[in-house]
Amino acid sequence: MFIRGIGRTKFGVLSNSLPVLAYEAMINALNDSTVGIIDIDAIFISNFLGGPVNGQLHLNSVIASLIPEVNIPILRIETACASSSVALNQALHCINNFENIMIIGVEKMTGPGLIPITDAIAMAGDYEADYKNGLVFPAAYALIAQQYMRKYGIDHSLLEEIAYLNHCNSRMNPLAHFYYKEVTREMIRSSPIVAEPLNLFDCSPVSDGAAAVIVSNKKESDRDIEILSSRIATDTISITQRRDLTSFKSTIVASSKAYNEANIGPGDIDILEVHDCFTISELIALEDLGMCGPGKAIELIENGEISINGSIPVNTDGGLKANGHPIGATGLAQIYEVITQLRSEAGKRQVENPEFGMTQNIGGIGGTCGITIFGV
Amino acid sequence: MFIRGIGRTKFGVLSNSLPVLAYEAMINALNDSTVGIIDIDAIFISNFLGGPVNGQLHLNSVIASLIPEVNIPILRIETACASSSVALNQALHCINNFENIMIIGVEKMTGPGLIPITDAIAMAGDYEADYKNGLVFPAAYALIAQQYMRKYGIDHSLLEEIAYLNHCNSRMNPLAHFYYKEVTREMIRSSPIVAEPLNLFDCSPVSDGAAAVIVSNKKESDRDIEILSSRIATDTISITQRRDLTSFKSTIVASSKAYNEANIGPGDIDILEVHDCFTISELIALEDLGMCGPGKAIELIENGEISINGSIPVNTDGGLKANGHPIGATGLAQIYEVITQLRSEAGKRQVENPEFGMTQNIGGIGGTCGITIFGV
Repeated sequence: MFIRGIGRTKFGVLSNSLPVLAYEAMINALNDSTVGIIDIDAIFISNFLGGPVNGQLHLNSVIASLIPEVNIPILRIETACASSSVALNQALHCINNFENIMIIGVEKMTGPGLIPITDAIAMAGDYEADYKNGLVFPAAYALIAQQYMRKYGIDHSLLEEIAYLNHCNSRMNPLAHFYYKEVTREMIRSSPIVAEPLNLFDCSPVSDGAAAVIVSNKKESDRDIEILSSRIATDTISITQRRDLTSFKSTIVASSKAYNEANIGPGDIDILEVHDCFTISELIALEDLGMCGPGKAIELIENGEISINGSIPVNTDGGLKANGHPIGATGLAQIYEVITQLRSEAGKRQVENPEFGMTQNIGGIGGTCGITIFGV
Repeated sequence: MFIRGIGRTKFGVLSNSLPVLAYEAMINALNDSTVGIIDIDAIFISNFLGGPVNGQLHLNSVIASLIPEVNIPILRIETACASSSVALNQALHCINNFENIMIIGVEKMTGPGLIPITDAIAMAGDYEADYKNGLVFPAAYALIAQQYMRKYGIDHSLLEEIAYLNHCNSRMNPLAHFYYKEVTREMIRSSPIVAEPLNLFDCSPVSDGAAAVIVSNKKESDRDIEILSSRIATDTISITQRRDLTSFKSTIVASSKAYNEANIGPGDIDILEVHDCFTISELIALEDLGMCGPGKAIELIENGEISINGSIPVNTDGGLKANGHPIGATGLAQIYEVITQLRSEAGKRQVENPEFGMTQNIGGIGGTCGITIFGV
């Protein structure tokens, strides 16, 4: 299975509507590829908040309206922030029955919505056990950060370094939400607290945007990149049901299956995108993915190993923190970056000769995890 | 591919929450089958309004919480009222990589919701082109009924007969929303107008409920029923983009592919469930599925051909009109009925020796259509 085309919009506070964002990503993916819209046999839409925020469900039919008279199978998948890598996973299950499938992730989060955006995002958590008790996502990840910091004896400065690295990377990515913004360590340190110990720069932004990829059962160009594995796993939705907050079992399960299928190990990965919805989740991801042992991600950060010239470059596009987090598009944006890197088309932020790339995309507090591994 | 277990809840105004409804359907499907929960390798959730009405998205993780420590792939599919047959279709694409997959459709529509239920249901239509101009679903189907009635020269009494037949069937289905309710032709005729020419009895009710099926790549019991084909197709979301309102192209495309794959024709179907969200859509479905020519469904109704003892029994469970329409569960409830009939377990409403069964499940105004064909 191969990625034959990738496309995305700029991420940020955008004026375009949800269908227009999706259309732009679709067209960009087609233009990037050697296939035309008529060659697309099915479409998978990933979107999280179309209903409660934009008043628009049944998005598969909205997309059908963009390509009338075609009547192909189109469907929508929603698994919170992991929606788009789960949609890719499902497309791959179908690829033997179709030639080319497009996956589109889209989210319109800024501007007036039917429900306030923080309440809407909280729908990725447990409505009864968590939300009604005030445990919105910054609060939940604050609890996780508190446990991690106490367990491994670190202070907030390490989290600040993660935010700083992601913002530095986004300055080399013109499509990133915060491409325009020069960020200093002092700005990060002195930013207002959101939920102790997390401050503003620990949190990914609310973004609009879309991304699309075309998958195919055959390779037709040197720019087509092979998908070596795609695996998904789930876990309980409420953190009140978890034994350990400093590790996400869904990441461990999905990634070990993916490594096994791809027949490689963590040490083989040359470019990695992880789901840093909050800075603390980047630390946890590095450990759960086996890039180091428990509590050892601290050293990877301190030693500069996750920077573009380090031993395992992470979130070279700026990550969710600085590239942006338009929820339904996020997993595909990670894939967009890994494909761009594996094609050696990443410009200033290009990693040197990467051979294997991986994305880790989670929903909620690891209630869902999608792992995808690519190889040149 | 085979259906190895079916389960559902009663449909109606129920006090149970969304996860509890899903759990009840799951357990009933497991108890109906020869497999245990530990044999289930993946779960597909179908749900439409969890976000805007119940404040709960990321339902795949909610379901994971019901079976902790298993961490299997679980995902949610939403394609408006066609969600559950699309979820089944997707599960079948995956079945070569798994042994047993459970599909659960669930909807909690009554009681307090974040958004009024009529506004929430309207999210299956085009928010910009239709909803903002007042074209909620009863209004849209009223336009369709007006066109059909003028084109073929019928009056409202034919639609009343469809409602009456469905209500009569539901009196033999203890799980139906309106099982308890004796309905007369006079009650139907004199019910209040909702949107001219549609009155209250032309409209399916707002229901809570859940249904589940287990699909497998092997048959292990005489009660396991083969799936001969599952096909989905899409169309534009707004009726302002349609050339003809008296036929749904998605039904025609999906059903012709399904007949072809199953290697049978409309005349072979012995038990049929169609998506009668409004009475008029039952007429249109019969024609689009090729049970008769355009405008000829009128005769099928008038001649009693769609009753349980007729040549093509339709909606023997009461249909959406009287069995109920808990949106995310509806397509699976249709399948529940067809499987029950093909197993000859339908009691008082049993059709005589059915060999082939079919379900037609649409989203919006035919923006999505899922067709499934079964055979003994």
